[in-house]
Amino acid sequence: MYIAMNRFMIAPGKEPGFEEVWKTRDSYLEEVPGFVEFKLLKGPVSEEAALYVSHTIWENKADFEAWTCSEAFRKAHKQAKAPDGTYLGHPQFEGFEVLLEKNITK
Amino acid sequence: MYIAMNRFMIAPGKEPGFEEVWKTRDSYLEEVPGFVEFKLLKGPVSEEAALYVSHTIWENKADFEAWTCSEAFRKAHKQAKAPDGTYLGHPQFEGFEVLLEKNITK
Repeated sequence: MYIAMNRFMIAPGKEPGFEEVWKTRDSYLEEVPGFVEFKLLKGPVSEEAALYVSHTIWENKADFEAWTCSEAFRKAHKQAKAPDGTYLGHPQFEGFEVLLEKNITK
Repeated sequence: MYIAMNRFMIAPGKEPGFEEVWKTRDSYLEEVPGFVEFKLLKGPVSEEAALYVSHTIWENKADFEAWTCSEAFRKAHKQAKAPDGTYLGHPQFEGFEVLLEKNITK
């Protein structure tokens, strides 16, 4: 299992426009081999910025990397963008391997 | 749903000791109301540090906050610590609400 997260720092007051982009676009992820789950997370908010994280689980890192070169990726990323001034800097990508796991069903 | 993440920056060469602490300690999370899932993630590694993230899902933020004041929390955190020099600074806590979700079973 592999978790791909992108961290977005959003300017104060620009949160609704950012969220709207995610709510209305089609990610085409269901058609992608190895895709398991997508979440959009809203984290800490300060006077300077709000932190959002796109959180996507894949069967493995190779499936994630194949997606970034795919037609589904291209289609998902050519849709509507958030208004100018929404983003404070570039998104910060972080990829993670799962070392340990415990849940209430195991 | 609420996701609590703690970010740990680990000194080069100290990764095995850090991982060992997580593998061997008992978290007592199964007994905690509202606990859903725990993962330990290993992220990007640079010459300066390796990023690890403890990633815990809760039914809601109130259940997470109640846990931090509980006997289970106290027991989990009084166990063996990683060797001196393992941590580069304090862990950075970030809590997240789930705004959107999509997975292969929905």
